[in-house]
Amino acid sequence: MSDTTVEGWTEQARPPALFRRFAFERYADTRAFLDRVAAVQEELGIAPQNISFGTTYVNVTIAGGEGGVGEAERELARRIAAAAAAGVTA
Amino acid sequence: MSDTTVEGWTEQARPPALFRRFAFERYADTRAFLDRVAAVQEELGIAPQNISFGTTYVNVTIAGGEGGVGEAERELARRIAAAAAAGVTA
Repeated sequence: MSDTTVEGWTEQARPPALFRRFAFERYADTRAFLDRVAAVQEELGIAPQNISFGTTYVNVTIAGGEGGVGEAERELARRIAAAAAAGVTA
Repeated sequence: MSDTTVEGWTEQARPPALFRRFAFERYADTRAFLDRVAAVQEELGIAPQNISFGTTYVNVTIAGGEGGVGEAERELARRIAAAAAAGVTA
Protein backbone atom coordinates (compact mmCIF):
# COMPACT_ATOMS: atom_id res chain seq x y z
CA MET A 1 0.00 0.00 0.00
CA SER A 2 1.05 3.57 -0.58
CA ASP A 3 -0.07 6.86 0.91
CA THR A 4 -0.58 8.12 -2.62
CA THR A 5 -2.91 5.32 -3.60
CA VAL A 6 -6.25 6.18 -5.17
CA GLU A 7 -9.14 6.12 -2.70
CA GLY A 8 -11.21 2.98 -3.02
CA TRP A 9 -8.60 1.05 -4.96
CA THR A 10 -6.22 -1.62 -3.69
CA GLU A 11 -2.65 -0.98 -4.72
CA GLN A 12 -0.09 -3.72 -4.93
CA ALA A 13 3.65 -3.25 -5.37
CA ARG A 14 4.89 -6.29 -7.31
CA PRO A 15 3.88 -6.15 -10.02
CA PRO A 16 2.65 -2.58 -9.59
CA ALA A 17 -1.11 -2.45 -10.08
CA LEU A 18 -4.37 -0.94 -8.90
CA PHE A 19 -7.39 -3.16 -8.39
CA ARG A 20 -11.06 -2.52 -7.65
CA ARG A 21 -14.30 -4.47 -7.75
CA PHE A 22 -17.52 -2.71 -8.75
CA ALA A 23 -20.94 -4.28 -8.12
CA PHE A 24 -24.24 -3.39 -9.75
CA GLU A 25 -27.90 -4.14 -9.15
CA ARG A 26 -28.59 -5.33 -12.67
CA TYR A 27 -26.94 -6.17 -15.97
CA ALA A 28 -28.04 -2.94 -17.65
CA ASP A 29 -26.05 -0.97 -15.06
CA THR A 30 -23.02 -3.23 -15.53
CA ARG A 31 -23.25 -2.75 -19.29
CA ALA A 32 -23.58 1.03 -19.00
CA PHE A 33 -20.51 1.13 -16.75
CA LEU A 34 -18.47 -0.94 -19.21
CA ASP A 35 -19.42 1.47 -21.99
CA ARG A 36 -18.36 4.44 -19.86
CA VAL A 37 -15.05 2.76 -19.04
CA ALA A 38 -14.45 2.20 -22.76
CA ALA A 39 -15.08 5.91 -23.41
CA VAL A 40 -12.72 6.92 -20.58
CA GLN A 41 -9.86 4.74 -21.78
CA GLU A 42 -10.27 5.96 -25.34
CA GLU A 43 -10.23 9.56 -24.12
CA LEU A 44 -7.15 9.09 -21.92
CA GLY A 45 -5.30 6.78 -24.31
CA ILE A 46 -4.56 4.30 -21.54
CA ALA A 47 -6.41 1.08 -20.79
CA PRO A 48 -6.80 -1.23 -17.81
CA GLN A 49 -4.63 -4.35 -18.09
CA ASN A 50 -7.70 -6.49 -17.48
CA ILE A 51 -11.44 -6.11 -16.97
CA SER A 52 -13.27 -9.20 -15.73
CA PHE A 53 -17.04 -9.07 -15.50
CA GLY A 54 -20.23 -11.03 -14.98
CA THR A 55 -23.80 -9.81 -15.08
CA THR A 56 -23.58 -7.75 -11.88
CA TYR A 57 -19.89 -7.11 -11.19
CA VAL A 58 -16.80 -5.74 -12.85
CA ASN A 59 -13.25 -6.29 -11.58
CA VAL A 60 -10.75 -3.76 -12.93
CA THR A 61 -6.96 -4.19 -12.85
CA ILE A 62 -4.76 -1.27 -13.90
CA ALA A 63 -1.10 -2.16 -14.33
CA GLY A 64 1.68 0.28 -13.45
CA GLY A 65 4.85 0.75 -15.47
CA GLU A 66 8.46 -0.05 -14.56
CA GLY A 67 8.53 2.80 -12.07
CA GLY A 68 5.32 1.64 -10.42
CA VAL A 69 1.83 3.07 -10.56
CA GLY A 70 2.10 6.59 -11.96
CA GLU A 71 -0.13 9.61 -12.29
CA ALA A 72 -1.57 8.41 -15.63
CA GLU A 73 -2.75 5.17 -14.01
CA ARG A 74 -4.14 7.04 -11.00
CA GLU A 75 -6.08 9.37 -13.27
CA LEU A 76 -7.50 6.38 -15.14
CA ALA A 77 -8.54 4.83 -11.80
CA ARG A 78 -10.21 8.03 -10.63
CA ARG A 79 -12.08 8.45 -13.91
CA ILE A 80 -13.28 4.84 -13.87
CA ALA A 81 -14.50 5.22 -10.28
CA ALA A 82 -16.34 8.39 -11.29
CA ALA A 83 -17.90 6.53 -14.22
CA ALA A 84 -19.22 3.94 -11.79
CA ALA A 85 -20.46 6.36 -9.17
CA ALA A 86 -24.00 6.43 -10.53
CA GLY A 87 -24.46 2.67 -10.54
CA VAL A 88 -22.27 1.22 -7.81
CA THR A 89 -24.12 -0.62 -5.09
CA ALA A 90 -21.25 -2.29 -3.25
CA MET B 1 -14.25 -33.49 -22.33
CA SER B 2 -17.40 -34.62 -24.05
CA ASP B 3 -18.14 -35.76 -27.59
CA THR B 4 -20.96 -33.23 -27.67
CA THR B 5 -18.73 -30.30 -26.80
CA VAL B 6 -18.82 -27.20 -28.98
CA GLU B 7 -16.00 -27.04 -31.51
CA GLY B 8 -13.24 -24.69 -30.45
CA TRP B 9 -14.32 -24.57 -26.82
CA THR B 10 -12.79 -26.37 -23.85
CA GLU B 11 -15.39 -28.14 -21.76
CA GLN B 12 -14.84 -29.00 -18.13
CA ALA B 13 -17.05 -31.24 -16.02
CA ARG B 14 -16.78 -29.94 -12.44
CA PRO B 15 -18.11 -27.37 -12.29
CA PRO B 16 -19.65 -27.74 -15.75
CA ALA B 17 -18.42 -24.96 -18.01
CA LEU B 18 -17.27 -24.04 -21.50
CA PHE B 19 -14.19 -21.87 -21.95
CA ARG B 20 -12.58 -20.16 -24.90
CA ARG B 21 -9.96 -17.48 -25.49
CA PHE B 22 -10.35 -15.08 -28.42
CA ALA B 23 -7.46 -12.91 -29.61
CA PHE B 24 -7.62 -9.80 -31.77
CA GLU B 25 -5.18 -7.65 -33.70
CA ARG B 26 -6.29 -4.39 -32.13
CA TYR B 27 -8.49 -2.90 -29.45
CA ALA B 28 -11.17 -1.77 -31.89
CA ASP B 29 -11.72 -5.41 -32.90
CA THR B 30 -11.84 -6.49 -29.26
CA ARG B 31 -14.37 -3.78 -28.52
CA ALA B 32 -16.54 -4.71 -31.52
CA PHE B 33 -16.53 -8.34 -30.42
CA LEU B 34 -17.58 -7.41 -26.87
CA ASP B 35 -20.47 -5.39 -28.28
CA ARG B 36 -21.56 -8.32 -30.44
CA VAL B 37 -21.39 -10.68 -27.45
CA ALA B 38 -23.59 -8.29 -25.48
CA ALA B 39 -26.13 -8.31 -28.30
CA VAL B 40 -26.07 -12.12 -28.49
CA GLN B 41 -26.60 -12.62 -24.77
CA GLU B 42 -29.44 -10.11 -24.73
CA GLU B 43 -31.07 -11.88 -27.67
CA LEU B 44 -30.72 -15.35 -26.14
CA GLY B 45 -31.49 -14.31 -22.58
CA ILE B 46 -28.46 -16.15 -21.23
CA ALA B 47 -25.08 -14.69 -20.33
CA PRO B 48 -21.56 -16.01 -19.89
CA GLN B 49 -20.64 -16.46 -16.23
CA ASN B 50 -17.52 -14.37 -16.80
CA ILE B 51 -15.85 -12.36 -19.55
CA SER B 52 -12.25 -11.30 -18.89
CA PHE B 53 -10.56 -9.03 -21.39
CA GLY B 54 -7.57 -6.84 -22.13
CA THR B 55 -6.91 -4.70 -25.17
CA THR B 56 -6.38 -7.64 -27.55
CA TYR B 57 -7.96 -10.71 -25.95
CA VAL B 58 -11.23 -11.89 -24.47
CA ASN B 59 -11.61 -14.99 -22.29
CA VAL B 60 -15.17 -16.28 -22.11
CA THR B 61 -16.48 -18.73 -19.49
CA ILE B 62 -19.99 -20.13 -19.88
CA ALA B 63 -21.26 -22.00 -16.83
CA GLY B 64 -23.51 -25.04 -17.15
CA GLY B 65 -26.44 -25.78 -14.86
CA GLU B 66 -26.93 -28.61 -12.35
CA GLY B 67 -27.26 -31.14 -15.14
CA GLY B 68 -24.09 -29.94 -16.83
CA VAL B 69 -23.61 -27.88 -19.98
CA GLY B 70 -26.90 -27.94 -21.86
CA GLU B 71 -28.12 -26.96 -25.29
CA ALA B 72 -28.78 -23.35 -24.25
CA GLU B 73 -25.15 -22.95 -23.20
CA ARG B 74 -23.90 -24.63 -26.37
CA GLU B 75 -26.00 -22.32 -28.49
CA LEU B 76 -24.59 -19.31 -26.63
CA ALA B 77 -21.07 -20.63 -27.25
CA ARG B 78 -21.70 -21.16 -30.96
CA ARG B 79 -23.22 -17.70 -31.35
CA ILE B 80 -20.30 -16.06 -29.52
CA ALA B 81 -17.81 -17.90 -31.72
CA ALA B 82 -19.71 -16.75 -34.80
CA ALA B 83 -19.64 -13.18 -33.49
CA ALA B 84 -15.85 -13.42 -33.24
CA ALA B 85 -15.27 -15.06 -36.60
CA ALA B 86 -14.64 -11.78 -38.39
CA GLY B 87 -12.02 -10.54 -35.96
CA VAL B 88 -10.29 -13.56 -34.47
CA THR B 89 -6.59 -13.86 -35.20
CA ALA B 90 -5.59 -16.63 -32.79
